[in-house]
Amino acid sequence: MAPRAAAPVFGLAKRTMAAATPSASLVRSYSAPVGNAIPLAKKKYVPSHGTYPQGFKVGGIVVGVKPKNTTKPDLAMIVSDVPCAAAAVFTKNRFQAAPVTFSRALLRTAAAADQPSIRSVLINSGCANAVTGKGGLEDAAAMARAADAVCSSSTQKSGTIVMSTGVIGQRLPIQKILDGVPTVYAGLGSSHEHWLTAAKSICTTDTFPKLLSRTFTLPSAAGVEYRIAGMTKGAGMIHPNMATLLGVLATDAPLSQAALPSLLKHAVDRSFNSITIDGDTSTNDTVALLANGTAGGPAVTNDPVSSPDYLAFQAVLTDFAAELAQLVVRDGEGATKFVTIRVTEAASAVDARRIASTIARSPLVKTALYGKDANWGRILCATGYALVSEPGEADSATLSTATIAPERTNVSFVPTDGSAELKLLVNGEPEAVDEARAAEILEHEDLAILVRLGTGSAEATYWTCDYSHEYM
Amino acid sequence: MAPRAAAPVFGLAKRTMAAATPSASLVRSYSAPVGNAIPLAKKKYVPSHGTYPQGFKVGGIVVGVKPKNTTKPDLAMIVSDVPCAAAAVFTKNRFQAAPVTFSRALLRTAAAADQPSIRSVLINSGCANAVTGKGGLEDAAAMARAADAVCSSSTQKSGTIVMSTGVIGQRLPIQKILDGVPTVYAGLGSSHEHWLTAAKSICTTDTFPKLLSRTFTLPSAAGVEYRIAGMTKGAGMIHPNMATLLGVLATDAPLSQAALPSLLKHAVDRSFNSITIDGDTSTNDTVALLANGTAGGPAVTNDPVSSPDYLAFQAVLTDFAAELAQLVVRDGEGATKFVTIRVTEAASAVDARRIASTIARSPLVKTALYGKDANWGRILCATGYALVSEPGEADSATLSTATIAPERTNVSFVPTDGSAELKLLVNGEPEAVDEARAAEILEHEDLAILVRLGTGSAEATYWTCDYSHEYM
Repeated sequence: MAPRAAAPVFGLAKRTMAAATPSASLVRSYSAPVGNAIPLAKKKYVPSHGTYPQGFKVGGIVVGVKPKNTTKPDLAMIVSDVPCAAAAVFTKNRFQAAPVTFSRALLRTAAAADQPSIRSVLINSGCANAVTGKGGLEDAAAMARAADAVCSSSTQKSGTIVMSTGVIGQRLPIQKILDGVPTVYAGLGSSHEHWLTAAKSICTTDTFPKLLSRTFTLPSAAGVEYRIAGMTKGAGMIHPNMATLLGVLATDAPLSQAALPSLLKHAVDRSFNSITIDGDTSTNDTVALLANGTAGGPAVTNDPVSSPDYLAFQAVLTDFAAELAQLVVRDGEGATKFVTIRVTEAASAVDARRIASTIARSPLVKTALYGKDANWGRILCATGYALVSEPGEADSATLSTATIAPERTNVSFVPTDGSAELKLLVNGEPEAVDEARAAEILEHEDLAILVRLGTGSAEATYWTCDYSHEYM
Repeated sequence: MAPRAAAPVFGLAKRTMAAATPSASLVRSYSAPVGNAIPLAKKKYVPSHGTYPQGFKVGGIVVGVKPKNTTKPDLAMIVSDVPCAAAAVFTKNRFQAAPVTFSRALLRTAAAADQPSIRSVLINSGCANAVTGKGGLEDAAAMARAADAVCSSSTQKSGTIVMSTGVIGQRLPIQKILDGVPTVYAGLGSSHEHWLTAAKSICTTDTFPKLLSRTFTLPSAAGVEYRIAGMTKGAGMIHPNMATLLGVLATDAPLSQAALPSLLKHAVDRSFNSITIDGDTSTNDTVALLANGTAGGPAVTNDPVSSPDYLAFQAVLTDFAAELAQLVVRDGEGATKFVTIRVTEAASAVDARRIASTIARSPLVKTALYGKDANWGRILCATGYALVSEPGEADSATLSTATIAPERTNVSFVPTDGSAELKLLVNGEPEAVDEARAAEILEHEDLAILVRLGTGSAEATYWTCDYSHEYM
């Protein structure tokens, strides 16, 4: 390849997308599960009932974002009776889809106002509204305006977070969506079926809808039952351009606007940011949290962040988000295993996390797990290069001889049935592995890999799946 | 999983490996190609002749490192008539195999002495001598001593670099190797067949031996023909514990000992450190360069590094190493494509490299390539998250808004037959892709992906392969 001259550069903001209706050659497709049937093995992950937060109405309808879709709901709406405190964690990908740009700005304004101002979330599946230029931004804003119009009353202005997931590089069929907003709003409700329909509406190649709900209490409001519900859709699909992860969590607990961002970031770092299917981070990844306070009780604030209520909600939210995020791993394309990677006794939390993440992403580890091979060598290799930098970069600031000490490293398989761990490497030396026992452990869908570094007290947990033939 | 107490720690140096003969349950195997047959599609990568550097004798024999191996040469030796200047680049994995530890120390001594002191390289395949404790270090030293014994003369002491590749966690059958050293030494020669046998001897799951040779001249020695030869073996195998990359390069050019480390590092960063099969970095990865000066001419030194001879040899070595390293990608497990990732117009070389590496490692990109899908969305996604840090880490120091500007980003497929590039994304906006043309380009084994960032003038190149069904 010969060196190339720089091409002329046009600012994206100066242009609108040429084609609102993309040419046929541009259209990419994905295969949604045929007939919306949920695979037998996944049915256990779909709840048959739930207890949902008060003051939220949800639902979903078919608008046909993808022209051939006439049966699968693809427009979801979540509306609170009253304005909510809200926060979101967005993709760090430098190419951010229009709904990310729009919603980020909206929530920045909400945070600055420091009072509840979000009434709804509007989500379409089938088209990601990503890499769509100025026109895409206008579409995202139009979605929010349409939702605001149906939600607003004379006394209170609305605010709508928008999300999109689906193919990249295509404009939304925006009129279909705008026309659908009054319809989806008219059909909203608070039953389990309404929540399940909403959860189904945000799916793309997911083989099952991902919905959870839970009740909890807070120390300073004895006797008040709070509720939290959440829906998510999967990342890491083999189908073209389908790697978006979305999540919406809603609670009727009285969280202050100021408290939400730190609570959500803490939870997402330990849940949605601690899972990997394929290691890719999409243009659209968004997880939002809405709190409407409808259940009553004293406000939970971040002043101080050491208050019992703040810490109690932080624990509830983190645990709930982790359970929700794990459903995404359960639905990894072709995955046959659900694997918890736990790194303990690390010199720092960042080191522990980096090592857990590297093991979780290692193709060699993931294929060994699929092959039911108790291959501690691959786990060890991934551990050993987790903190290594690329040539030309400074070594990781966290890398120190204290972080990984081969002679202190232990690797075990921990069965999830409570039986004894199987030691593979003890203080840097290979165990004579009982292969029959290893095979027994590897027969199960669930498995934990424990890496004890012996150099500190920090730890991190990651969840991953195997790579199977079906992934390819 | 309950929190675990720290296990007692024993220093590796205080213990020897318990089992020199590992128990049966520990033994892992890999599948070498049946009957050593080279697949038809790979035969074109195996040379039928070569011009090899003067003053080197090489060869390989069967010693049966793996008990069942009675036909495949598994002990290679490279010997120079006179002491060589030598350098090596070793794995950065924190778990380093015994031969890495041994050879690193040897070359540190050689560098300090600042004069040619290495006579030979001894390499076994079949067992990596990794995670083998103090006993493993003793085995590596014993290999070197055995080679030194047959190479040394009364007038000059020898020095031997050792390398091992194969299964991890098992001790070498050291006596077989020691017994084989006089035999392999006795059979050394300088013919093409000798070089090819040596190249075969270092293979594990490789489907073909990887050997190249080339002649070159240097500015200040007009009329002197120099020669360089190299052999390598593959990384990134699906088979257990087989991810070692080894390389040995030998030249008869008169390089000074002081000049070698910087020359080799420059070349390896742009060759062996710019390829990826599966992104894993093994415990044994080693690339060594020996220069015996036998062809004569004025010494090439690094004083100054801007001298015409230094720069000329740097270019020859880098180019040669890249060609050799690319053979490893050609032999990626189940790979059907050889893909060059070229990132240009970057704000810095480190950024360019990080982005090229991230694209090259992205499972979504690699599966799309196997699926012959002109999926610029996945390439864009990988570009967009290449510089993103893990939660809890500081963002990459190199990350700036200047590095990736969506509206300046261009993505193209560049055919290797010299025909026009196929633009997929122009200044951040998707092209109406000619899918017929894309399919045509993707039919070929070779393909280049060009990402022009439009934010600077730095660039980097990476080589990768696709993920096919066979990989799993």
